[in-house]
Amino acid sequence: MRIIIIGGVAAGTKAAAKAHRVDPNNEIIIYQDEAEVSYSACGLPYVISGVIDDSRKIVIRQPEDFAKEGIQIFIRHRVTGIDKTRQQLTVRNLKNNTDTVVDYDRLILATGARPIVPNVEGINLEGVLTLRNISDLGRFKTQLTALQIKKAVIIGAGYIGLELAESFHGLKIKTTIVEQAVGILPKFDAEMARLVHDHLLENQVELVLDDGLAKLHGENGRIIAIETKSGKMIPADLVVIAIGVRPNVELAKAAGIELGITGAIAVDSRMETQTPGIFAAGDCCETVNRITGMPIWMPLGDIANLQGRVAGDNVAGGNVHFPGVFGTAIFKTFNLTVAITGLSEQTAQESGFDPVSVVMTGTDRARYYPGRQEFSLKLIADRLDGRLLGAQVIGGGNVDKMIDIAATALLGKLTCADLENADLAYSPPFSPVLSPIIVAAGILNGKLIRNEN
Amino acid sequence: MRIIIIGGVAAGTKAAAKAHRVDPNNEIIIYQDEAEVSYSACGLPYVISGVIDDSRKIVIRQPEDFAKEGIQIFIRHRVTGIDKTRQQLTVRNLKNNTDTVVDYDRLILATGARPIVPNVEGINLEGVLTLRNISDLGRFKTQLTALQIKKAVIIGAGYIGLELAESFHGLKIKTTIVEQAVGILPKFDAEMARLVHDHLLENQVELVLDDGLAKLHGENGRIIAIETKSGKMIPADLVVIAIGVRPNVELAKAAGIELGITGAIAVDSRMETQTPGIFAAGDCCETVNRITGMPIWMPLGDIANLQGRVAGDNVAGGNVHFPGVFGTAIFKTFNLTVAITGLSEQTAQESGFDPVSVVMTGTDRARYYPGRQEFSLKLIADRLDGRLLGAQVIGGGNVDKMIDIAATALLGKLTCADLENADLAYSPPFSPVLSPIIVAAGILNGKLIRNEN
Repeated sequence: MRIIIIGGVAAGTKAAAKAHRVDPNNEIIIYQDEAEVSYSACGLPYVISGVIDDSRKIVIRQPEDFAKEGIQIFIRHRVTGIDKTRQQLTVRNLKNNTDTVVDYDRLILATGARPIVPNVEGINLEGVLTLRNISDLGRFKTQLTALQIKKAVIIGAGYIGLELAESFHGLKIKTTIVEQAVGILPKFDAEMARLVHDHLLENQVELVLDDGLAKLHGENGRIIAIETKSGKMIPADLVVIAIGVRPNVELAKAAGIELGITGAIAVDSRMETQTPGIFAAGDCCETVNRITGMPIWMPLGDIANLQGRVAGDNVAGGNVHFPGVFGTAIFKTFNLTVAITGLSEQTAQESGFDPVSVVMTGTDRARYYPGRQEFSLKLIADRLDGRLLGAQVIGGGNVDKMIDIAATALLGKLTCADLENADLAYSPPFSPVLSPIIVAAGILNGKLIRNEN
Repeated sequence: MRIIIIGGVAAGTKAAAKAHRVDPNNEIIIYQDEAEVSYSACGLPYVISGVIDDSRKIVIRQPEDFAKEGIQIFIRHRVTGIDKTRQQLTVRNLKNNTDTVVDYDRLILATGARPIVPNVEGINLEGVLTLRNISDLGRFKTQLTALQIKKAVIIGAGYIGLELAESFHGLKIKTTIVEQAVGILPKFDAEMARLVHDHLLENQVELVLDDGLAKLHGENGRIIAIETKSGKMIPADLVVIAIGVRPNVELAKAAGIELGITGAIAVDSRMETQTPGIFAAGDCCETVNRITGMPIWMPLGDIANLQGRVAGDNVAGGNVHFPGVFGTAIFKTFNLTVAITGLSEQTAQESGFDPVSVVMTGTDRARYYPGRQEFSLKLIADRLDGRLLGAQVIGGGNVDKMIDIAATALLGKLTCADLENADLAYSPPFSPVLSPIIVAAGILNGKLIRNEN
């Protein structure tokens, strides 16, 4: 059986490896339009900051490594058409622009996502960049090393924008973030997002909110300033468009493969599309929010890996399921770690829950243990039955631990009463005597019993 | 109503604070035989090492702080008798050795535990110490500052012994650990304990296993060497007895309050003893292992706090339950963090489960992210239904996060299949793209499906 995988970054390579392990007798081929496969897109901001000193480090495996396992990778090959009926692909070799038609037995779409680029005047000026693929790094490097970049504007205050703001700060580049919404981080509740907002200001990042990109101004073909919708002119040596990504679904759509309501490819829990034998995984497909049961598009590297594993298993004859996501995400900006899992209070309300919440300050060590750091922790529960609905943690210290405890609690459908007596690991270098999660759950449980807000 | 609490370290003070919050109209009295209340015994090894530079820092609250809330604390007062029928206590003021009889309406026993001290020749020599209470610190300080301690022997390779070995190493004291068992850390499976064993040797700690303390040799009333049961003589300027602790139950026993099969005070899930109106919490009482359902004695600071909260709530008229423990514990020795939750593979077998396990190496960050550290992770699951039974994690990096995810998974009765698709927080500074817990659960789930060992 010939299994073809379109896309070789996260979901695609994971699916290939899994499919090979499940049944080594299949022929497995990956087509990847970039020159690199199997790289960590999440590492890109850290290559730009120099925290990761060599871009080759974020390439996890080479095509040769896959070849040793019998997985063939064709780099710089783009699939331009899928014929579902004949089970054939048209593949363009980007090195010589020749097309070939290739038969497949089963197919996995792992075509990923791409940055949204607004169609405004000046968008093609030199010095206007996006950061999504490893091939974007070269352009960044050219700008950052060849030129004296002193002022940058980042359009969009999402994860990538805020990670890049930190990277630029480290490179002594004065940075302005322009965001169309009234506040940054719309997935977080306003009082939590505000902590990040204030921290950015403290770190000399300028924030222009409730305003969008209208036009880019250049001189000799090079960016010199941006103009916002409100008419503000912001000088810039470099502009990064980071307003979000959209799934690469054109190929699927043209082939008649169904998309979901999020606009990404619709799949069942086996990661199979509505066309039997064609699977999808990673940023090109949607999944299910395990709390609301609603479709959600969650283009993140870890989810792509989880889905790739399931698609790879099933494409090779397995029968495993991907149950969906809780919306867990984490990133770092300056000295803050910013993390979320489950529903925000606002999303919970919008989804028909009656949420009750608590916000408190927690620490990562016993109060007398040196080096202790603080964070703000918000827990959200359902008033009906006390079940945890979500958590947001922002600050220093082991924010990642807090959010992973909460994410595991969501997985276990735990209530605040359950969490209040969790048996978590305590020793002074690792936690206060009662974990902030336990304390917060206790406060929330008390509110539920007394029926407070 | 007068609520009297015997003991004012962790469970006692927590119970008092909770009881006061539940009903501020009660009279609440704590009798504490030491001069300090509300201190963190878990911080003691770090005061000895100097990581915590002032012993006063581990005292969380002063009697005056409690007095402001209307909680009366009598320090250096020892309760010497309980008359259940008359609901009276005999209390000795240790400052002037006078006795008073005091009425109570409800009682909480929070009498803690004390080190086991073997009755061997030379046990009272100067320089032979135990570390349990804050009052032990003075003796350590005298020894460590007034004398040139060059060689120490620690009897017992439990948590306190291993924490102290690190403290002594930092103080340039050559340390030997003598342990009666054939290996250190009996709660861990042998292959995991071995990692700690080897790390101790690498850090110039001498280990004498399968051998016990027979006799202490002195000169002019001061320790100069220990003799082991096998006849080995080990020179020592300082000896610490750290072979374990036992619950302080003499007072309860004399009063006719039932003990459990572990030898600690028996309580129900409301932390009430078999004598109505008398509660117990903390190191003096036993609890339930939530996996086996069997009584277990777990003398740890966080459990004492959790139990104190429940006892304090119920003594004041509440009706809350402490559901028991999973046996979660963590400590640090040299560069290793050592953590466990749930059952070891051996305990699982002994408890009648058919366990299947995996041991793997995990890391705390993406492989290309600087500063990444490694740990060994063992997961144990039930072959019957794939349910997680326990985890052990030993190494550098965020071992505490791994064990808390596992502990929360135990709380949620999660299976390996559940954990394999956990939605944990990923970003390169915080985790590899798939958390080691997810990877380990996936391997274990694969073994279960294929029915391997």
